Amino acid sequence: MHELSVDLGDRSYPIFTGAELFSKPEYLLPYIHGQQVCVVTNETVAPLYLQQLKAVLGDKEVLDVVLPDGEQYKNLNTLNLIFDELLAARHNRTTTLIALGGGVTGDMTGFAAACYQRGVDFIQVPTTLLAMVDSSVGGKTGVNHALGKNMIGAFYQPNCVLADTDLLKTLPERELSAGIAEVIKYGLVSDYDFFVWLEQNMDKLLAKDEAALAYAIDRSCQNKASVVARDEREGGIRAILNFGHTFGHAIETAQGYGVWLHGEAVAAGMVMAADLSQRMGMISKDDLSRLVGMLRQAKLPVMAPDTMTSDDFIALMSVDKKVLDGRLRLVLLQSMGEAMVTSDIDRALLLQTFSAC
Amino acid sequence: MHELSVDLGDRSYPIFTGAELFSKPEYLLPYIHGQQVCVVTNETVAPLYLQQLKAVLGDKEVLDVVLPDGEQYKNLNTLNLIFDELLAARHNRTTTLIALGGGVTGDMTGFAAACYQRGVDFIQVPTTLLAMVDSSVGGKTGVNHALGKNMIGAFYQPNCVLADTDLLKTLPERELSAGIAEVIKYGLVSDYDFFVWLEQNMDKLLAKDEAALAYAIDRSCQNKASVVARDEREGGIRAILNFGHTFGHAIETAQGYGVWLHGEAVAAGMVMAADLSQRMGMISKDDLSRLVGMLRQAKLPVMAPDTMTSDDFIALMSVDKKVLDGRLRLVLLQSMGEAMVTSDIDRALLLQTFSAC
Repeated sequence: MHELSVDLGDRSYPIFTGAELFSKPEYLLPYIHGQQVCVVTNETVAPLYLQQLKAVLGDKEVLDVVLPDGEQYKNLNTLNLIFDELLAARHNRTTTLIALGGGVTGDMTGFAAACYQRGVDFIQVPTTLLAMVDSSVGGKTGVNHALGKNMIGAFYQPNCVLADTDLLKTLPERELSAGIAEVIKYGLVSDYDFFVWLEQNMDKLLAKDEAALAYAIDRSCQNKASVVARDEREGGIRAILNFGHTFGHAIETAQGYGVWLHGEAVAAGMVMAADLSQRMGMISKDDLSRLVGMLRQAKLPVMAPDTMTSDDFIALMSVDKKVLDGRLRLVLLQSMGEAMVTSDIDRALLLQTFSAC
Repeated sequence: MHELSVDLGDRSYPIFTGAELFSKPEYLLPYIHGQQVCVVTNETVAPLYLQQLKAVLGDKEVLDVVLPDGEQYKNLNTLNLIFDELLAARHNRTTTLIALGGGVTGDMTGFAAACYQRGVDFIQVPTTLLAMVDSSVGGKTGVNHALGKNMIGAFYQPNCVLADTDLLKTLPERELSAGIAEVIKYGLVSDYDFFVWLEQNMDKLLAKDEAALAYAIDRSCQNKASVVARDEREGGIRAILNFGHTFGHAIETAQGYGVWLHGEAVAAGMVMAADLSQRMGMISKDDLSRLVGMLRQAKLPVMAPDTMTSDDFIALMSVDKKVLDGRLRLVLLQSMGEAMVTSDIDRALLLQTFSAC
């Protein structure tokens, strides 16, 4: 077991990574302060792990809420289902919500915890690689709106995160790949040595080698925790973690939520951001090829959907949260392993990227 | 003009009270940091003050959202209308929301600001006495759920509060009385001298005497700010501000939101809480009569609706947020001007209160 701390003053919390954590009460019970617990999960995960989790919770008063599975359900209506159940079961301010699932479950459960009775405790038990390395760490919670992804939400930190690699045994290949997209992101934006490690160990990750997965999760979380500790509410440096996401969110919004997985859209978005970085003279064509090659090996898309035009991207990207006072800001690669945020973007080159990718 | 500070570290903010503040840019513009502003108001207030407010905003890019008026619209669906408009107009993270209206408008606008893109700035311009002395101060924001009032929300502080007594000139009598209920509350729970002042000056308040109103607003806000500064997230002392509210929320929920005004339900709720305090030997029958007399003078209800039974109260009060780990906690009067929170409640006496009130 590896323990990592996200340092946020009185909102600091531990991330536990490793195998066989999930069935041990010592990683959960110390972080639950009341008698009431509400486990929020989805239809896919519930048959696999819900009973196991409830067994660990001992004599707590446990409610479970099983949501439909998929990004297309990450909205205010589904959120309200959680509130319905909590109120019907008379859960009070001392309740603890546990998110058992992927990024969608974690984002919605965290936001429900942020809002229920103006804030109750919550714990993340991610069941996908993407949730373990990205969405369960850092306190971004929320739901989508028909006009934009994650537009409604809160910064709200969990009491702890339990990333048990055993839970990845049942993860479908496509979801594994989607998670690897975010893992690759950390190498690209802030950790070149990790990028090189990924080039050498991608086959192990794809084969779900336990040691390789544990290492990749822990190193990804270290990268994320370090950035989040410096800039919790994304006033500055944290924005580099959005590398590929402004393009990616446009893809997700255009396709309709749930058609592409978030990690798949981010993969194509990272290629677009890297392509623009190359056109702007910051990275080489070889660098771009290394990225494209790695994503291909991980069975991830490296192009936007054929159906999307430049106009689609322009329209959708200008409502992304990364726009400040009307100006588009993008995260680009200064070099491999070093990202920067800039609003100094050559429009002609951006249009070339839209055409090329 | 009177300026009062709510001391909450880096989330501190000023409350400006007085006449003729509303039309002066110096109380608003310094608290707006971007170019985009969204004024949220309702159908009743918009024809009276919206254009006036927009005139003060000068060259800002101003969007307005006019909501239906009434507590029955304080829900997630109405909240989503604000998000729809903000996204359609492409408001980004630098936008500032201004709540122009009563408590419902302020609570919803504040919660929308807390959630939109995970948090944007907001300003309170209350147009009712209740909002000036209570809901616009202290950062409680949120919406109702069919199963309970204010069950979904956030603690989220405004950049400033502008309480202009001129705006009360158009306030209907019934709404003025509802606001006076919360003013009386401060006297009861923490400020006996103010309670005595209210006994002597109630006729002036009811006649909308400007100096009396300004004094009552400022003194109420002082009381509230002092409690909130000590306990922002209601871990302890802040709960005394809920005096009468546990009973009152039960009345509002049973009647359906919008039938009784919030202040009216609180008035009847305060009588019930004081009645129980008297039965438990903490205040005298004379004390109770003074309260009832003052509320009657202010044209406020002093009994729960005839249609409500003891069973209704029991059922509805046990889901109120003031219940911790299954035990009912109530705010009672230790003496006139001094409230306490207790879960040590004699059930037989509580049932007597339900029958008597």
